[in-house]
Amino acid sequence: MPKGRLEAFSDGVIAIIITIMVLELKVPHGTSLEDLAPLWPVFLSYVLSFAYVGIYWNNHHHMLHAVKHVNGTVLWCNSHLLFWLSLTPFTTAWMGENHFAPVPVAVYGVGLLMNAIAYSLLVRALIRSHGRDSEFAERIGGDMKGMISLVLYILAVAVASVNSAISLGLYFAVALIWFIPDRRFER
Amino acid sequence: MPKGRLEAFSDGVIAIIITIMVLELKVPHGTSLEDLAPLWPVFLSYVLSFAYVGIYWNNHHHMLHAVKHVNGTVLWCNSHLLFWLSLTPFTTAWMGENHFAPVPVAVYGVGLLMNAIAYSLLVRALIRSHGRDSEFAERIGGDMKGMISLVLYILAVAVASVNSAISLGLYFAVALIWFIPDRRFER
Amino acid sequence: MPKGRLEAFSDGVIAIIITIMVLELKVPHGTSLEDLAPLWPVFLSYVLSFAYVGIYWNNHHHMLHAVKHVNGTVLWCNSHLLFWLSLTPFTTAWMGENHFAPVPVAVYGVGLLMNAIAYSLLVRALIRSHGRDSEFAERIGGDMKGMISLVLYILAVAVASVNSAISLGLYFAVALIWFIPDRRFER
Amino acid sequence: MPKGRLEAFSDGVIAIIITIMVLELKVPHGTSLEDLAPLWPVFLSYVLSFAYVGIYWNNHHHMLHAVKHVNGTVLWCNSHLLFWLSLTPFTTAWMGENHFAPVPVAVYGVGLLMNAIAYSLLVRALIRSHGRDSEFAERIGGDMKGMISLVLYILAVAVASVNSAISLGLYFAVALIWFIPDRRFER
Repeated sequence: MPKGRLEAFSDGVIAIIITIMVLELKVPHGTSLEDLAPLWPVFLSYVLSFAYVGIYWNNHHHMLHAVKHVNGTVLWCNSHLLFWLSLTPFTTAWMGENHFAPVPVAVYGVGLLMNAIAYSLLVRALIRSHGRDSEFAERIGGDMKGMISLVLYILAVAVASVNSAISLGLYFAVALIWFIPDRRFER
Repeated sequence: MPKGRLEAFSDGVIAIIITIMVLELKVPHGTSLEDLAPLWPVFLSYVLSFAYVGIYWNNHHHMLHAVKHVNGTVLWCNSHLLFWLSLTPFTTAWMGENHFAPVPVAVYGVGLLMNAIAYSLLVRALIRSHGRDSEFAERIGGDMKGMISLVLYILAVAVASVNSAISLGLYFAVALIWFIPDRRFER
Repeated sequence: MPKGRLEAFSDGVIAIIITIMVLELKVPHGTSLEDLAPLWPVFLSYVLSFAYVGIYWNNHHHMLHAVKHVNGTVLWCNSHLLFWLSLTPFTTAWMGENHFAPVPVAVYGVGLLMNAIAYSLLVRALIRSHGRDSEFAERIGGDMKGMISLVLYILAVAVASVNSAISLGLYFAVALIWFIPDRRFER
Repeated sequence: MPKGRLEAFSDGVIAIIITIMVLELKVPHGTSLEDLAPLWPVFLSYVLSFAYVGIYWNNHHHMLHAVKHVNGTVLWCNSHLLFWLSLTPFTTAWMGENHFAPVPVAVYGVGLLMNAIAYSLLVRALIRSHGRDSEFAERIGGDMKGMISLVLYILAVAVASVNSAISLGLYFAVALIWFIPDRRFER
């Protein structure tokens, strides 16, 4: 099966996820700059999640570009990834509205973890369908960045109850690691 | 007429339906895990509807892939399907917010039933436009899964006033039946 | 300029307009069928607007299919059409929530009128860019249905203060006229 | 890398931004024309932002049409642009709901300024990737309109605390300047 509609549907869902998060930025009642100030945790959460969803779109884009064909398993792994990504507006809002309280910060990290696991299941399904010796599998190679991310997410979730600022710092650190798209797929 | 824009428009509408349902997951005021607990019926409904809308997208994707051309009747049957699908966020929210009360569970089932009928009308319009002896009609073949689904939906709606948990179980069972996309359309 | 992205952007905007209208179907607090009953004016308005936006998508689809190229004027006429279409969720909600009160019904009709005028400006821009003797202009031919619609919209707006049910009937009548897509563009 | 998915994702995000702004047009409780009147600042803000987002889509469309290929830096510059564009519904709502109070009007202008800067960073990334002597760079040429816009935005932000009507007039003036799409990219 060709991959065109899978890309189009994913683009649509990811575009909506990344955009509806802005609806959480509730307009303040006052009209001074000070009235904007209390929005900073919601805004910071928005920036973080926009970056993460953007990273997933970028990596998805790069990976799918190298894909030759998709099958039923790949379609389901992709829907599974979109499901976890679709929870991002919820975890983002809970974290932002509660000024980075420990549990919401930890739950946000669990969301990131599930995204990462779902993405890695999609990668595996694609490798299986192309064959372990395919050009695609070769280009993917090891997944050092993915492994480091998983470890840092788990660390961040664990540490949230002690100091949620450290967790938040780790989320931003992982985002920075991923900011450079997978060079493996660029020519 | 080529089918490209029909696919693109359907992808867009389905992507929005599947994504705006998450807006019903209202952020709790508290910041503990216990504050998340009361969300379980809304979350479970979200999972179920995400799966259903995902199944429709998958089957739509597979079927349209085999389609050679579309005509005016097909366009209208497709819009008719999108109309019933677009009510899913409403029936999902009503069911989830009311902890699976009998009537909302039955109405949710009626929604699933209408989706199934609308999908089957689309299939018929496509068969008619391709001809009963076409490769497309041959690939579609019988529709055992569709028939079983209809029977189970009606059963679930009927039984909701007695025990809505059974209805819910039936909805999940039908989703499981459909989880494997139509092999008929895979090469 | 090729027309691909114009179609894609229009598909996106129209898909969102048609889908976010369902957010106006507010979930009732009760759990009985009687609790659904008061929703009928909102639901009826939703059905009407879904049909109208679907008709615009259909006709846009058919017309653009016959288009060979687009220019700057066409892009702006298209954005102008999308602007008026984008107000449909607002006029629909105002009419539905107020049980078809005279002024909201009239304003809804003004919205339909603006959509029709904007669509006809787009048609003219396309004819001008293809040339009056082009195959495109020939296929468009006269615009009897468009003229009848305009007259009926104006009649409906005028009559709303006397009897808004007649206006509503006229809106449904015009929708029925348009239900059959422009045969001119089908092969 | 081909540019198709970059266009599709941008189309999706921009389509959603331009459409969800209408959700700010809250339906009034009354049913007379006078009840619509207080909506004028929200409506005027909507018109202005619809025009701006439409202009960005138009120029993006024209520019990308001339683009031959995209790289990682271009993808990130594009996401950066989409980020600032995605804040438009927020700045629009704050300005409209507060009847063009000085600070919201200034913040709206800062948003326009960030959009313009992000767009110009994207242009630079594209010129760099195509080469300073490429056909693409030649077609872009100088950026007089962009420069004038930046100056007028800064002026409008500065003057908002004195007279926000002048700022608003400047925003409309800049929109008018851009209404004609970049002729450079039309053939």
